[in-house]
Amino acid sequence: MAITVVGSVAYDSIETPAGRRERCLGGAATYFSLAASFFTDVRVIAVVGEDFGPEQEAVFDARSIDTRGIERAAGKSFFWEGSYLENLNEAKTHNTELNVFAAFEPKIPEAYRDSEFLFLANIDPVLQRRVREQMPGVRLVAGDTMNYWIKDHRAALLEVLKGLDVLLINDTETKMLAGNSNLVQAARAVMALGPSSLVVKHGEYGATLFHKSAPKGKGAELRAPALPLEEVVDPTGAGDSFAGGFFGYLASQRELTPAAYRRAMFYGSVMGSFACERFGTERLQQLTRQEIDDRFTVFRELTHLD
Amino acid sequence: MAITVVGSVAYDSIETPAGRRERCLGGAATYFSLAASFFTDVRVIAVVGEDFGPEQEAVFDARSIDTRGIERAAGKSFFWEGSYLENLNEAKTHNTELNVFAAFEPKIPEAYRDSEFLFLANIDPVLQRRVREQMPGVRLVAGDTMNYWIKDHRAALLEVLKGLDVLLINDTETKMLAGNSNLVQAARAVMALGPSSLVVKHGEYGATLFHKSAPKGKGAELRAPALPLEEVVDPTGAGDSFAGGFFGYLASQRELTPAAYRRAMFYGSVMGSFACERFGTERLQQLTRQEIDDRFTVFRELTHLD
Repeated sequence: MAITVVGSVAYDSIETPAGRRERCLGGAATYFSLAASFFTDVRVIAVVGEDFGPEQEAVFDARSIDTRGIERAAGKSFFWEGSYLENLNEAKTHNTELNVFAAFEPKIPEAYRDSEFLFLANIDPVLQRRVREQMPGVRLVAGDTMNYWIKDHRAALLEVLKGLDVLLINDTETKMLAGNSNLVQAARAVMALGPSSLVVKHGEYGATLFHKSAPKGKGAELRAPALPLEEVVDPTGAGDSFAGGFFGYLASQRELTPAAYRRAMFYGSVMGSFACERFGTERLQQLTRQEIDDRFTVFRELTHLD
Repeated sequence: MAITVVGSVAYDSIETPAGRRERCLGGAATYFSLAASFFTDVRVIAVVGEDFGPEQEAVFDARSIDTRGIERAAGKSFFWEGSYLENLNEAKTHNTELNVFAAFEPKIPEAYRDSEFLFLANIDPVLQRRVREQMPGVRLVAGDTMNYWIKDHRAALLEVLKGLDVLLINDTETKMLAGNSNLVQAARAVMALGPSSLVVKHGEYGATLFHKSAPKGKGAELRAPALPLEEVVDPTGAGDSFAGGFFGYLASQRELTPAAYRRAMFYGSVMGSFACERFGTERLQQLTRQEIDDRFTVFRELTHLD
């Protein structure tokens, strides 16, 4: 089943202990699309500026990602500059330029309308909602957000949450959104706002899946590990790549069974781990499905008793 | 197989968001012994003061823990006061009084000498080493330490590490001991100092097992989860309880196979999760083996795909 994703396609300047890259291709929708493209058809809605050229376009083409929904606008693409010099788990943002995203009015191409899966990557919840409303018939909607929207755009975000089946956020965001410092209690409070499933990402410690339908007293549904990595080159996009692996795998399944969700968590962790191995999207661009399945096996061995 | 453990038997005054307890029974050897006693025979070496009475003694007796190696000295028992008001994952120490521990000379009762397993809980590495040297014939030696000894008593600690088979410490301690901020690289550096296995405890995120013999390029051996808990009443002793479950289970096994180590990791996580559910040792005192095995099943479901 095809996924439509709305989110940023951007340029990032990144500094990590492993080095520095200037203006490499990035953005949540980019990482998500590349990761999900190994599992299913992906269609992107975004806006880019005049600086987005054939070289960037080719990255999407190589993975057969549909870019007809990427609008070209006058001006410059979204730009983010950050570093991870002290803490590889948390980016320090030095600069964010919305540029063409400031006036973005998402339009959904006719060819995207039969997508059964919709992913609302981390952008202004007002834009997330506008896209959601234009695709009322989708089978499953997942989304991401961040501390900025939780703190300063809460009302708009709460409207988005009502229309989500799955929310993917990290520990801090979960606790902030719920106003509760206990993860299990916070997860339940967040699901009461809309999503029937919640994936809490723990960075280097993996991710936990919660379901609203779980019996009272049962905490989490599944805890997927992250692979302890010998070298983390650049964690940028790991969370978006997790989301792409998770949602891409779900979209590839005929039935959305509990077992499919569990495997999706592992595929999410697998894609997140690859994303960290090189700068920007470099690793995702070179990846093969065989490597993905081999790492899935490693993750199974890392967590299973027999 | 019997385990001999050396470490603190103490009084703790603890404040957490769930409340406060004054001078409750604590100490690393206490938590370790209680947890391990569900799997095998446990013998304690420690020193207590005149304030240690029949009520505390009864806690050990109820679990058939051998206390003949707990020396009674003039003065007061080791005392620790701490709180977890801002962060349930990290204790803030308000007061530490070594008291009778300041002049402790560990002596090993004759009846303990046939112990095949030895656990050196977190105390002065000089004392750990003295006990280790008095029990040269043991089959497996595991130990714990903390940032204080790593920073300020490094030479003595390095001597202890040479005589350890398994070291159990947390993320920060692993990185500090290795002087390396990458966990996989740090784990390898720590194992080069002696222990052939390393268990890195991640608090609410579980624990990771590393083996020195793993092929180059293979990071961790196993990542065990922690149970996302609805209510964390008091995390004091969770790490020592993990060690007790882990080492107690190993000591109960005829053969120390890789599969036994993997199950031991899960039993460690199980015991750590119980320890947090009540203040001090309250939960461990009331526990049954059936509850332990039931939670082991929950942990399996939480991590396994099928």
